[in-house]
Amino acid sequence: MVVAAPKADRRVTICEAVFELLAEVGYDRMSMDAVAARARASKATIYRGWPNKPELVMAAVEHRYGGSAEPPDTGSLRGDLVAHLSTVCAVADGIDGAVFTGLLTAATHNAELSAVMRRCVYETKHVMYETMIKRAVARGELPEGSTPELLHEVLHALVMSRRLWRAGPFDEAFVKRTVDGVLLPVLRQGC
Amino acid sequence: MVVAAPKADRRVTICEAVFELLAEVGYDRMSMDAVAARARASKATIYRGWPNKPELVMAAVEHRYGGSAEPPDTGSLRGDLVAHLSTVCAVADGIDGAVFTGLLTAATHNAELSAVMRRCVYETKHVMYETMIKRAVARGELPEGSTPELLHEVLHALVMSRRLWRAGPFDEAFVKRTVDGVLLPVLRQGC
Repeated sequence: MVVAAPKADRRVTICEAVFELLAEVGYDRMSMDAVAARARASKATIYRGWPNKPELVMAAVEHRYGGSAEPPDTGSLRGDLVAHLSTVCAVADGIDGAVFTGLLTAATHNAELSAVMRRCVYETKHVMYETMIKRAVARGELPEGSTPELLHEVLHALVMSRRLWRAGPFDEAFVKRTVDGVLLPVLRQGC
Repeated sequence: MVVAAPKADRRVTICEAVFELLAEVGYDRMSMDAVAARARASKATIYRGWPNKPELVMAAVEHRYGGSAEPPDTGSLRGDLVAHLSTVCAVADGIDGAVFTGLLTAATHNAELSAVMRRCVYETKHVMYETMIKRAVARGELPEGSTPELLHEVLHALVMSRRLWRAGPFDEAFVKRTVDGVLLPVLRQGC
């Protein structure tokens, strides 16, 4: 008997069911059976595609976060940073932030899941930071040779830390203070 | 019958037993019974002092991390930052970092534990940052009115993020890059 892998549209339905359940009950209480029921798929289909829960969750994380996007293009470095950080804050403050915080739990015991999360939430986003920096260099706002590594690392760490420790709201004041007090000084050092 | 609270030296023994078990088996698998056995205390003594596991863990976290310390005093702002960050990295890289990462799991479901962790690992340390900044102002390295808030927030976030995502080693290169590329530019903006 030839066993086919789940087709693309089934994959999408299943990944979305996984994400819904992660949001509703969290990683520990999510079962493969519940995913099958939510996606109206047979258990055989689920297990054929993903042998266990970590694999299934990794697929759902890739599906939802694995891509990149065009960064904002406001005409100034500061404008781009404010717009981008505002978007990141909205994501961290919403259901995605809650799911991700929950998954960190599982990831501390699972290096592979941790690596997938890091790739999806960090590495695939790096090209956006590169684009913002290139545009700022082209406009003469930053010197030739400026790189996005520190910007990306600091922005990511500050947002994640605030979310994880419930250290304060993701409001305009946070965005402004982070952009003007941290990100721009880090980028403009030596200017 | 008058029931006395555990005496101070019993408290220390019990808190240290809790921390050892957190390091060995993690929060989820640590039982009140195991703590009693490790501390050679009766279960009645444990339950008399702390009605449940979160309370007991919070006491242990307070015991081990609740205090502050004198910051390094090397004679320069950069020297102080390098010395302090090196110490923080050594802690994050060792057993305390592992225990703390494990406790974050429990803290995502327990706002009170989260608040205790934040107080012990962040708020009680703030005075060290104040002292470092005051000394730098007195030496004329920073302008009057300089404050430690951003320094503390950024340093804490960068170390925690690196630990949690296993993003790289806590080596001299990380310390140097963080101090020269992020912390000093943040502190010296407007200088």
